[in-house]
Amino acid sequence: MPEVPRESFDLGRLDELFHLYHAETQRLLGYPCTATFDYSPLYRFLAFPLNNVGDPFRPSNTRLQTHELEREVLAMFAGFTHAPSESYWGYVTNGGTEGNMHGLFLSSELYPTGIVYHSEDTHYSVSKLLRAMRIPHRVIRSRPDGSIDLEHLSETVGSHRDVPAIIFANIGTTMKGAVDDLAGIGQVLRQHAIKESYIHADAALSGMILPFVTDPPPWDFAAGVDSIAISGHKMIGSPFPCGVTLAKKSNVAVIARGIEYTGSIDTTIAGSRNAFAPLFLWYALKTVGVKGFTSRVRSCLEMADYACDRLNASGHNAWRHPHSNTVVFDRPSAAVIHKWQLAVTGKIAHVMAMPQLTREHVDELVADMNREREPHGSRSQ
Amino acid sequence: MPEVPRESFDLGRLDELFHLYHAETQRLLGYPCTATFDYSPLYRFLAFPLNNVGDPFRPSNTRLQTHELEREVLAMFAGFTHAPSESYWGYVTNGGTEGNMHGLFLSSELYPTGIVYHSEDTHYSVSKLLRAMRIPHRVIRSRPDGSIDLEHLSETVGSHRDVPAIIFANIGTTMKGAVDDLAGIGQVLRQHAIKESYIHADAALSGMILPFVTDPPPWDFAAGVDSIAISGHKMIGSPFPCGVTLAKKSNVAVIARGIEYTGSIDTTIAGSRNAFAPLFLWYALKTVGVKGFTSRVRSCLEMADYACDRLNASGHNAWRHPHSNTVVFDRPSAAVIHKWQLAVTGKIAHVMAMPQLTREHVDELVADMNREREPHGSRSQ
Repeated sequence: MPEVPRESFDLGRLDELFHLYHAETQRLLGYPCTATFDYSPLYRFLAFPLNNVGDPFRPSNTRLQTHELEREVLAMFAGFTHAPSESYWGYVTNGGTEGNMHGLFLSSELYPTGIVYHSEDTHYSVSKLLRAMRIPHRVIRSRPDGSIDLEHLSETVGSHRDVPAIIFANIGTTMKGAVDDLAGIGQVLRQHAIKESYIHADAALSGMILPFVTDPPPWDFAAGVDSIAISGHKMIGSPFPCGVTLAKKSNVAVIARGIEYTGSIDTTIAGSRNAFAPLFLWYALKTVGVKGFTSRVRSCLEMADYACDRLNASGHNAWRHPHSNTVVFDRPSAAVIHKWQLAVTGKIAHVMAMPQLTREHVDELVADMNREREPHGSRSQ
Repeated sequence: MPEVPRESFDLGRLDELFHLYHAETQRLLGYPCTATFDYSPLYRFLAFPLNNVGDPFRPSNTRLQTHELEREVLAMFAGFTHAPSESYWGYVTNGGTEGNMHGLFLSSELYPTGIVYHSEDTHYSVSKLLRAMRIPHRVIRSRPDGSIDLEHLSETVGSHRDVPAIIFANIGTTMKGAVDDLAGIGQVLRQHAIKESYIHADAALSGMILPFVTDPPPWDFAAGVDSIAISGHKMIGSPFPCGVTLAKKSNVAVIARGIEYTGSIDTTIAGSRNAFAPLFLWYALKTVGVKGFTSRVRSCLEMADYACDRLNASGHNAWRHPHSNTVVFDRPSAAVIHKWQLAVTGKIAHVMAMPQLTREHVDELVADMNREREPHGSRSQ
């Protein structure tokens, strides 16, 4: 009989963890997670073994699922992303990676010989997926602002004109919040007379920002994308990662035939799926509402401006893209990174202006950074 | 500005759902989900945006994670599966599909030219993964009891002796609970002098049964498997799907080099990961304990025997594998399937003897089936 490690079961550890999380949630400045949610009216559902296994649009064998709420969540996201009415398909995922995998799966079923093009600012998980899925791909240079370099894209696509082009577009890069230029990408494809192409949009964070701003850049189904992945635990907020993947129904129908050939009628990636993700997202979308998210996004962008101003007033070279709450600035010391749980890469760091970010957080961060520049802690000028 | 569907927000719908789930949990006989859990002492943690992003064995950039509990969960599973001490690696997944994808990813990184062999009783999600991952594969016939046909395996492996063999073994098939014969599979590989091989074990349900029975068949690292996926929401029980994937550390190190080349140091599939899955599993393993699971498994197998006896007493051709709580019998009517949420395929159905299954459930199911055979409801003989 195997042995469980003998350490005694200590509920006190759980109390310690609870207090740790309570404190550290106040110092999570580098990650794009809303922390102001309250799902306590839904906790009672955690008594049940729910499972949204399979396609939310097909009849289910069990009643222990939230498929109906899931379809309502998808309908709301279809509105946010201007999906063609009644002709979209999708499901609630375990997070951005699954949504991106779904988009890549769709595109590679439609165009098995296609090459995926993505910028070097693309999230690292995408290279891992492309490797796991054995999909040929080319990395395209990014411009300094984080968006894909259209000249390099054109040059690269131009030397592979014989195969379909699958564009993995960032609608808000992880580090700089840059939105790839979809109109420019479309021009590149036309310029090289690429007849078979597919555009997947990774709109993890910005997919819940751009629907609520005026004059967003082209980013969604209206701009010609074929599939979109959006996270649920970012601007909406959730205790666990989740997201939504949406695609044109006609494309999904094509791949469904291929999958059914393998004996499955389930076109989701995960199979067994968390039924609480749709339940929580449904609750958040219903209680916060479009007005609430519009006001939330406006506040976040205002706080991002405040952070830019305060950081620049102390010479930390802060900037942000329009419609992005990602504030990029010079990489601070390891101690500051650790204290505020900042995300960094190379010489830059960023602060995410999420709903829980306050002026006091920004002021204290800037004070921490300024203090380090002062020799021996004195206030030298 | 997009519009949310105008339907008003109605909390009463949530009450209806709650009552539905309460009732239907009593009639979930066909799916292997323990429903007797109580995680209410952990609900308070749902106030935090936790995220176990990345490798649980590497230092994390954020404190809002349960990596320490996750490592303890993995250590317990390493004990259950006789993993080589200190030389295993793994993480808590979103469920069986992700664990199986991880095993397939490992095997295909180690042996890029390898062919995957799996029986036709393998879960449908595996064909979908193999298609998405573009891994060459061959389906092997199953024996009537659900286990892989070793003669057909030998014949097929024998005609591909020039490439590595990757065996996807079922440690408990979905429909019949059959355990593939690992000793026999080893013989086949030796017989054909296959030098490069890999065995992944899909032990979704039985991975939490076989550690707690006497004289289990060979099934785990001690029997030579290279990776194992086990579900957490099945015999342990959880409100959302989750699982564990374990692999030999030496193999993971090989693939980590390939993944780091892509710019990532994260060898998990999901990236952002549910931190509640490790928290809930840790709590269940600590509170139920090895003694508790031993007694739980014994009770389930006794109830499976009771179900076999009662079904056979009425001529429904019930049977089960030793050490399996999957009771297979003749497919009943659509009404019975619907009422009891049974899983069916072709001419068979099964009942899963999970902890919440009672003699009353079995008696009522058998009575329902018998009643249908009686013309006009009379008690004709």
